[in-house]
Amino acid sequence: MNIRPLGDRVVIKRLEAEETTKSGIVLPGAAKEKPQEAKIVAVGPGGIVNGKEVKMEVKVGEKVLFSKYAGNEIKMDGVEYTILKQDDILAVIE
Amino acid sequence: MNIRPLGDRVVIKRLEAEETTKSGIVLPGAAKEKPQEAKIVAVGPGGIVNGKEVKMEVKVGEKVLFSKYAGNEIKMDGVEYTILKQDDILAVIE
Amino acid sequence: MNIRPLGDRVVIKRLEAEETTKSGIVLPGAAKEKPQEAKIVAVGPGGIVNGKEVKMEVKVGEKVLFSKYAGNEIKMDGVEYTILKQDDILAVIE
Amino acid sequence: MNIRPLGDRVVIKRLEAEETTKSGIVLPGAAKEKPQEAKIVAVGPGGIVNGKEVKMEVKVGEKVLFSKYAGNEIKMDGVEYTILKQDDILAVIE
Amino acid sequence: MNIRPLGDRVVIKRLEAEETTKSGIVLPGAAKEKPQEAKIVAVGPGGIVNGKEVKMEVKVGEKVLFSKYAGNEIKMDGVEYTILKQDDILAVIE
Amino acid sequence: MNIRPLGDRVVIKRLEAEETTKSGIVLPGAAKEKPQEAKIVAVGPGGIVNGKEVKMEVKVGEKVLFSKYAGNEIKMDGVEYTILKQDDILAVIE
Amino acid sequence: MNIRPLGDRVVIKRLEAEETTKSGIVLPGAAKEKPQEAKIVAVGPGGIVNGKEVKMEVKVGEKVLFSKYAGNEIKMDGVEYTILKQDDILAVIE
Repeated sequence: MNIRPLGDRVVIKRLEAEETTKSGIVLPGAAKEKPQEAKIVAVGPGGIVNGKEVKMEVKVGEKVLFSKYAGNEIKMDGVEYTILKQDDILAVIE
Repeated sequence: MNIRPLGDRVVIKRLEAEETTKSGIVLPGAAKEKPQEAKIVAVGPGGIVNGKEVKMEVKVGEKVLFSKYAGNEIKMDGVEYTILKQDDILAVIE
Repeated sequence: MNIRPLGDRVVIKRLEAEETTKSGIVLPGAAKEKPQEAKIVAVGPGGIVNGKEVKMEVKVGEKVLFSKYAGNEIKMDGVEYTILKQDDILAVIE
Repeated sequence: MNIRPLGDRVVIKRLEAEETTKSGIVLPGAAKEKPQEAKIVAVGPGGIVNGKEVKMEVKVGEKVLFSKYAGNEIKMDGVEYTILKQDDILAVIE
Repeated sequence: MNIRPLGDRVVIKRLEAEETTKSGIVLPGAAKEKPQEAKIVAVGPGGIVNGKEVKMEVKVGEKVLFSKYAGNEIKMDGVEYTILKQDDILAVIE
Repeated sequence: MNIRPLGDRVVIKRLEAEETTKSGIVLPGAAKEKPQEAKIVAVGPGGIVNGKEVKMEVKVGEKVLFSKYAGNEIKMDGVEYTILKQDDILAVIE
Repeated sequence: MNIRPLGDRVVIKRLEAEETTKSGIVLPGAAKEKPQEAKIVAVGPGGIVNGKEVKMEVKVGEKVLFSKYAGNEIKMDGVEYTILKQDDILAVIE
């Protein structure tokens, strides 16, 4: 992985529906915004972000749920990633 | 339960209408937004969230009232949960 | 009363028109938002709320004026209550 | 007076047009929002309001100019009052 | 002058077009909001305003440029004044 | 120059297209907001502005790029100037 | 380079599609806002910006991903640049 996110940003790789089923998480078709499952591939340093202390709570390799509409999508070496702020990550799946 | 919410987030399981009646809480059909009853299944660590100190005031197992439109819904092992911020919880039912 | 409001929230029971007349407070039919009279039935602990120190200034049993459109309504054991933030309470009637 | 305003709130009684003329203040019919003259009847304790230190600068009995659309109107013992935040008071007339 | 503005408020008297020409300031007819020239007649004490330290930088008698749409207009003893916050004053003309 | 800007405000004189060409800066006709070149003619004292410490980073005589739609225009002794906040200045041209 | 950005601003030169392919980053044609690749040509001093401490995390010469709609475009000596705030830079490509 050759991307270093700045501040409290995190790079994640969305997990496909197959993997999702495996871990037992299914995202229902309700009217509310549905979070998605992803794997963390890079974590920013945190520190003072927008004048506020941010401590990074996630690590590379962890599976997380994130808000589907958050962040920016990029493609690297043919693979799609999303760059978002740690605050857009809802929970870690353990 | 295999979800670890981040920051001041909390995972809750909505209680059905039957249980609601049991505890004596009924949510009237008024025009205002109506809170719903739920059970807490996971609590984030709190700490510095968005640059502000947050102390978690709820515990796993407690019954709470929360704002119906708050948070994100997920399905795990066939059960629906909601992930929301502690501030969207109105009160603990004791 | 078996509800424990979180943070700077307060549970109040709206007073009926009859009681309102008794205390000498009448709410006129003007175009502005009209506050309503209520009795406090539960008070949150205050403390750090949304990163800010909040000191609770009201006590259970006090009569208060509150903004009619503030808060969430609930029904408990057949009685309607409102859960709102202390900041939505305008004044205590002594 | 039997109302105790909370935080940085103030209770005022609007002065009639006659009194306004007496003190030499006339509010012109311009397009801008016009402030109104009133007498202060109760002053909140100030202190930490919404996480910010507020020092009360007005006293009961003082005449003030306030923004016409600010605050909430109430009627007590047949008299109309307005409850507003001290910041909605523009100036003291001495 | 018998008005004491609160906090960081300032009372000014708009200068007429004649005086404007005298001081060499002409306000062009462009599409942008045009500031106006005025004389300061009363200055609030400053201090903690809305939780922030404000130091008053203007004095009674100074000529200033202010944003035309800022503040509230009042009439006192037949003369029109404007009450605005010091932050709506752009510059002092020396 | 007889204008003293308050707080973090700066008075600038827009440079004409000819001067712009000379310094090698040309502003392209793209769809985005285009900054303009100007010379600084007066600088406010900085200090605590809106409760925040502001250190002035520009000096009288410097050429700067600023956001075209920022600030207020005035005319003094027949010359047009713009009064804006230092934060609306993008960069100094050296 | 003869531009000195103020505060937490950064001057970047957008990289063309050819260079983008070289580094292996391809920006997909999805519906979300797509970040773009650029090279940093000038970095502001950071420090207190808008009352908040900002530490500059990028250096001249680094390749970065930035949000396409952020910042202001300028043309210098015939070359187009963008001036944006460091917070609009998503990640450094290493």
